[in-house]
Amino acid sequence: MKIKILSTGDEIVSGGVVDTNASWLAASLLGLGLTVDCFVAVGDDFGTLRRTIADLAAETDILIVTGGLGPTNDDITAEAAAGAVNTKTILNPEALGLVTDYFNRKGWPMNPSNKKQAVLPRDCRVIENEVGTAPGFYLRISGCHGFFMPGVPKEMKAMTLNWVLPWIQRYAAKNLGRTLTDITPRTITVFGLPESEVGARLKDLATQFPGVRPGFRADFPLIQVKLYPDSEKRGGGENILDQAEQFVVTTLGRWVISREGLTMEQEVGRLLVQKKATIALAESCTGGLMASMLTDVPGSSEYFIFSGVTYSNEAKIRVLGVRQSTLESHGAVSEETAGEMAQGVRRLTQATYGISTSGVAGPGGGSPEKPVGMVCIGIAGPGFCTTKRYGFAFNDRTMNKQIFAVTALGALRKRMLMQGGSV
Amino acid sequence: MKIKILSTGDEIVSGGVVDTNASWLAASLLGLGLTVDCFVAVGDDFGTLRRTIADLAAETDILIVTGGLGPTNDDITAEAAAGAVNTKTILNPEALGLVTDYFNRKGWPMNPSNKKQAVLPRDCRVIENEVGTAPGFYLRISGCHGFFMPGVPKEMKAMTLNWVLPWIQRYAAKNLGRTLTDITPRTITVFGLPESEVGARLKDLATQFPGVRPGFRADFPLIQVKLYPDSEKRGGGENILDQAEQFVVTTLGRWVISREGLTMEQEVGRLLVQKKATIALAESCTGGLMASMLTDVPGSSEYFIFSGVTYSNEAKIRVLGVRQSTLESHGAVSEETAGEMAQGVRRLTQATYGISTSGVAGPGGGSPEKPVGMVCIGIAGPGFCTTKRYGFAFNDRTMNKQIFAVTALGALRKRMLMQGGSV
Repeated sequence: MKIKILSTGDEIVSGGVVDTNASWLAASLLGLGLTVDCFVAVGDDFGTLRRTIADLAAETDILIVTGGLGPTNDDITAEAAAGAVNTKTILNPEALGLVTDYFNRKGWPMNPSNKKQAVLPRDCRVIENEVGTAPGFYLRISGCHGFFMPGVPKEMKAMTLNWVLPWIQRYAAKNLGRTLTDITPRTITVFGLPESEVGARLKDLATQFPGVRPGFRADFPLIQVKLYPDSEKRGGGENILDQAEQFVVTTLGRWVISREGLTMEQEVGRLLVQKKATIALAESCTGGLMASMLTDVPGSSEYFIFSGVTYSNEAKIRVLGVRQSTLESHGAVSEETAGEMAQGVRRLTQATYGISTSGVAGPGGGSPEKPVGMVCIGIAGPGFCTTKRYGFAFNDRTMNKQIFAVTALGALRKRMLMQGGSV
Repeated sequence: MKIKILSTGDEIVSGGVVDTNASWLAASLLGLGLTVDCFVAVGDDFGTLRRTIADLAAETDILIVTGGLGPTNDDITAEAAAGAVNTKTILNPEALGLVTDYFNRKGWPMNPSNKKQAVLPRDCRVIENEVGTAPGFYLRISGCHGFFMPGVPKEMKAMTLNWVLPWIQRYAAKNLGRTLTDITPRTITVFGLPESEVGARLKDLATQFPGVRPGFRADFPLIQVKLYPDSEKRGGGENILDQAEQFVVTTLGRWVISREGLTMEQEVGRLLVQKKATIALAESCTGGLMASMLTDVPGSSEYFIFSGVTYSNEAKIRVLGVRQSTLESHGAVSEETAGEMAQGVRRLTQATYGISTSGVAGPGGGSPEKPVGMVCIGIAGPGFCTTKRYGFAFNDRTMNKQIFAVTALGALRKRMLMQGGSV
């Protein structure tokens, strides 16, 4: 089954907006074991769009189109799709009913331009939009099945999950005699290896486990290894996925931080809940990023108590109780200061763990002994305080903040795992 | 001049990586007044890639290809490009020299697979890669000029700026008799209006200023309005850009936060430096995000003193000196608490301004009186403390944190502007 994805909109081909719809669609289809062979994006030019729809439809079984179904004059996808099959658009009564219902439910006044959203190609089938105003539609384009959805990601996703994927599953079962697996892909989170190294270590995976299709997603500084069932090759059942997952975990060893695809902050949160422990932070170079990551996790108020983002020495002394003499003899960026910060914030808040970061995120502030990319991390807990110095070579302020934060949380994770059930 | 962009790689069409190269290239070309008519992405299949290169080249003047020039077996772009012009690849001595030099400069041992990176189509011209190991190349594909670069964004960007754009400028000057403007596009940052509303208010811009091409970039919760010179229509000089910029600023009025395209945290930082003022934060629902945003700005240590991320009531009382009675009678999410937090952090740190946030980011924790999306913001400064309550309807924890943080910084910005030169 050949599948192509077309994204439309001047904002995409002008570089104003990065198209994330095509990626999301491809990843969702991969979840059914289906691969997409190309993405195309074109602007809002009627002739180009009509020709592109017709050309792509001529060489694929399934064409998924997003964008251009809105109420404004730029929104020409319905017209272009009709043109591609040499038909006209008409006011579709079913679509008009859905749009009207949507406005009534929201209690919004309906605008004449919204009526335009119900003008669809003759003989199409309407795809309901439960989370927005623009209906989508299904249109047969000679041998090709075309699905047309709005470009708003939330709306496109809801319609894909509720309508398009179930349609494709039914179609495959009926016409191809194939049950498309909807096995959830496995996701293994890796931290501490570059993407190229992860790829190199797992290079035999595809040949050893032919029913499994691996994918890599870099979400700096983490890498997610995804294992999808490959429905073209059959045999992509739970069992082979389990074996492949075990292979990844064994091969990558201590670099694996979660077999459930959790981020570092989610994994640390999970361990804190498990231990009924709490955390407080003393952040210098991470500047609040560690706190923001931890508090992105819903329910984090259960274990996250406080972060003192102490940029100035003054604040380190006054809020955290770091000694003036430590700052003078070792400097703010030192294991000694990091240790006192971690202990200070733990004392202040009575949290189970106090974690600190002090380093040089750059671009300025580096020196030969303390270059940009260096960070000192302290971890204080019941009866212990450890510190360690790390060096990274990214030379980018935001990347440094990110890797410092994940490294600090990773150090706490390791400590918590070492301790087993106790804190 | 017709331009198309091709991105290659299984990781793109499998949805593992969102392709940002095509967008970046299109935006850079728009800076020269050139528009791209389509983006295509295909996987690492030799036949598909060769055919796609040949097909796209047949219908465009310029084809820019990224990806597939690395050292591994998946990297087949040079081979496919050679196939598209019915020639072979050979070990290119100039490319080999560049790769060898690069390894020597870095003091890295050269690996046999890196030699493969110097195997390029016969009769191509080498494009030096100053920031990575894979050289790029220029190849004439009958009437089309093809540029092939690695997919690593940093390498692709450096090669585009150093080689590809200057080539296109020289080509246009020599063959088309046109000087491509390299006027920097104007960028105006807007906060507080949805993208559709910004578009609606500026809908006459393109007709009123025919030498200017507008673009919109949503970077939640900000919107950037970009004004590019349109070299197809001529007349896109500094003067007309100035007029169009003034039109945008006048039309959008108080929603414009920067005429230099600054983010809210950059603009607040600029004003703080101008006033020689300092800032300290007391963050509850924003969870460190405001601090992290402010400290993303290089040089922020000049004005950023401290943030107390006080999630628990305990921490609000102990660190910030919020009164127990205030928390009991008004609750943690209240203007009263926000006011005491702002004053408390200002007192603690002696900063010029103390800013606080206390709200409900969700998904849990909402109530009829204090629903998810509600936030109370306090601003304390010399001789004043103001508080205000806001409500947002995004129903997403991360979006709520973002809009709360930008709203709080926006409130400080307004206050600083009202005060003129004084603090």
